[in-house]
Amino acid sequence: MTVKTQAQESEVKKLPVTDDIREAMALIRRGTDTFLIEEEFEQKLARAKLEGRPLRCKLGLDPTAPDIHIGHTVVLNKLRQLQDLGHTVIFLVGDFTAAIGDPSGRNTTRPPLSHEQIVENAQTYLNQAGMVLDLDRTEVRYNSEWNNNLGSVGLIQLASRYTLARLLERDDFAKRFAENAPIAMHELIYPLMQGYDSVALKADLELGGSDQRFNLLVGRELQRQYGQEPQCILTMPLLVGLDGVVKMSKSKHNYIGITDAPNDMFGKVMSISDSLMWDWYDLLSLKGNAEIDKLKKECGEGRNPRDAKVLLAKEIVSRFHSDAAANAAEEEFNARFRAGAMPSDIPEFTLEAPEGSLPIGFILKSTGLAASTSEAFRTIDQGGVKINGEKISDRKLTIAKGETFVVQVGKRKWGKITVA
Amino acid sequence: MTVKTQAQESEVKKLPVTDDIREAMALIRRGTDTFLIEEEFEQKLARAKLEGRPLRCKLGLDPTAPDIHIGHTVVLNKLRQLQDLGHTVIFLVGDFTAAIGDPSGRNTTRPPLSHEQIVENAQTYLNQAGMVLDLDRTEVRYNSEWNNNLGSVGLIQLASRYTLARLLERDDFAKRFAENAPIAMHELIYPLMQGYDSVALKADLELGGSDQRFNLLVGRELQRQYGQEPQCILTMPLLVGLDGVVKMSKSKHNYIGITDAPNDMFGKVMSISDSLMWDWYDLLSLKGNAEIDKLKKECGEGRNPRDAKVLLAKEIVSRFHSDAAANAAEEEFNARFRAGAMPSDIPEFTLEAPEGSLPIGFILKSTGLAASTSEAFRTIDQGGVKINGEKISDRKLTIAKGETFVVQVGKRKWGKITVA
Repeated sequence: MTVKTQAQESEVKKLPVTDDIREAMALIRRGTDTFLIEEEFEQKLARAKLEGRPLRCKLGLDPTAPDIHIGHTVVLNKLRQLQDLGHTVIFLVGDFTAAIGDPSGRNTTRPPLSHEQIVENAQTYLNQAGMVLDLDRTEVRYNSEWNNNLGSVGLIQLASRYTLARLLERDDFAKRFAENAPIAMHELIYPLMQGYDSVALKADLELGGSDQRFNLLVGRELQRQYGQEPQCILTMPLLVGLDGVVKMSKSKHNYIGITDAPNDMFGKVMSISDSLMWDWYDLLSLKGNAEIDKLKKECGEGRNPRDAKVLLAKEIVSRFHSDAAANAAEEEFNARFRAGAMPSDIPEFTLEAPEGSLPIGFILKSTGLAASTSEAFRTIDQGGVKINGEKISDRKLTIAKGETFVVQVGKRKWGKITVA
Repeated sequence: MTVKTQAQESEVKKLPVTDDIREAMALIRRGTDTFLIEEEFEQKLARAKLEGRPLRCKLGLDPTAPDIHIGHTVVLNKLRQLQDLGHTVIFLVGDFTAAIGDPSGRNTTRPPLSHEQIVENAQTYLNQAGMVLDLDRTEVRYNSEWNNNLGSVGLIQLASRYTLARLLERDDFAKRFAENAPIAMHELIYPLMQGYDSVALKADLELGGSDQRFNLLVGRELQRQYGQEPQCILTMPLLVGLDGVVKMSKSKHNYIGITDAPNDMFGKVMSISDSLMWDWYDLLSLKGNAEIDKLKKECGEGRNPRDAKVLLAKEIVSRFHSDAAANAAEEEFNARFRAGAMPSDIPEFTLEAPEGSLPIGFILKSTGLAASTSEAFRTIDQGGVKINGEKISDRKLTIAKGETFVVQVGKRKWGKITVA
């Protein structure tokens, strides 16, 4: 009789990793911030294939902020890729804690939500997410389903599975503890409840933003404690906004709303830098790795990156509107900028508007697109200044804070300007 | 219009403290380890008197250890004094957490108990406590009554009332945290649940051992947070055992069991030192302060402290058996030791018995009560050695570990010996 050690046994059990699984792994890995533990996930994929059982991929959904921009769709894209590989996406609506709000009353930005509000917000979110995901292959679950039944006994048993020291490893807790800033006890319980969601859902993979890494690992650990195979962890980076500098957010006015009009959406994608474009390809495109690599190679060999940008812009407009809208937006864009006239890379400027807006003369002078305000005015009078491809005639035109636009002065001077 | 500050207002509301309240306070204060906050409790007493409403005095009961010795009755005595002052005693049976046990499985000495076991243990305890307390003026409550209904939501809301830093002020938590010893999260929740019991019971006073001080203060704080008048806190010291050195405990063999036979009980009380006797008066006697002060004064002026010891021994035997049994035990004791023959203070010895028992010859020689083993044997043969007043004749007599006894050799040599 041969006695196998546990290590040997797990070695024996290891399933073969075929080429299609390696390809799937490469797609899933694309653009990720953290992917833990890849080797385990490869085995999960192999077993899923062998057993014909889709993997369960969980994403927690914050039902307090239903209005999303394309930065929020990065993780949805990853989920869509997983769906296209045949796996199941589970949206976990954290209605249990949302209904509690912040009972300490410290965090006034987290008022308790009614069940109706939560369901409505989740539905709004799903309507938006449905532009990226295949909702027919999406399971929506509310964590009150198991958390209400958990009861005080279940919650204590859950709490017994984790030590204080382990929870204090979370960066924000560690920081606040070190600074003697108060940490209310329920805040320490919330990561455990989020982790317990993975137990209840028997998740194979949990996705989240980079800031969620710790909480996702708690889920992994709890699954192990409850005798389940632990979930793998995948976090996605935050999408850098139109300015190419800071993460996309409404407050920074560097975003594309998923309800933006097709022309705006198209124009905004066309305005990003070439290097940012490739990041966006990784994070926003549903094209396969091979197709993107081919494009990249072609551009490296002399093809105008503008072509790649047009493809990306069209893909994004198609997703949130339609193929027809994407084609129309391309034509409109070409008409405005007389196809090929706009250089692929144009200088970018960000101007501060302490009083909420800036006059066009000031803008043209400050960016050097006109030598002086009076020259700017003269060029405007002569019909030589275009904003987003449209001639302007009003010397007194002001641009409000938050706007980003492409300005053309004469035939050759171009600038992409953000009023911040 | 005069605007009153809060301080002024509470000053205005202050009730007069009459002599009977001052006397009650002195009785309640007697023997305490901590009494917080006395001024507040004085006001509670005054208001109770004014409104004819008894105060609610809570004691948590550990349903895992129902078998008690007189050391455990110290806090019951204090409760009996409160009952005699007209107040209500509430026994809080912690069945909720006892039923959970230690879910982390770390503490194997705390297995989960079934509801039947808990009720049975509590009943055993009450039968014993009833020897000290007036059970007709005692309310027995089980904390599952409110803790089960609390649910996971209620528990989170409770947790939100307290910060981590405040809980880590508890000595044992602070120590373990400093030493990187694991603290499971549910351990941090338990003090909050114990505190919540005070909220549910609207306790005016909570009693406990000195080691419970922190937990009792949590109850006080939580009551304030739930908008209640906070409870006062009273902790009692641990009773020092027969040896006059360490706290009474079964493992130290220095205890009086409440089911000990009347003669044993009487003899054990008679064997303690004079100074320990006065501590025991404070902690175990239900005599008033004035009566004890009078006795103490008389002994100071030349009365034999043995008289005071007899009174205490009789009070204790009466409590756990009957007045008749106490009188009989006194007579028996006097007969054995030929009244007055035993000195009030006799030398005490503790001998180690590594093999479980010691032979009498060795004992008499080691303690110097006989010059040699052969002298010891000779005296035994002559009928000159008495143990607890009874002649012995067996040279081979051995005394088992755990026994404490009084030995008399000849007319004048006495010793109180503990085999440990």
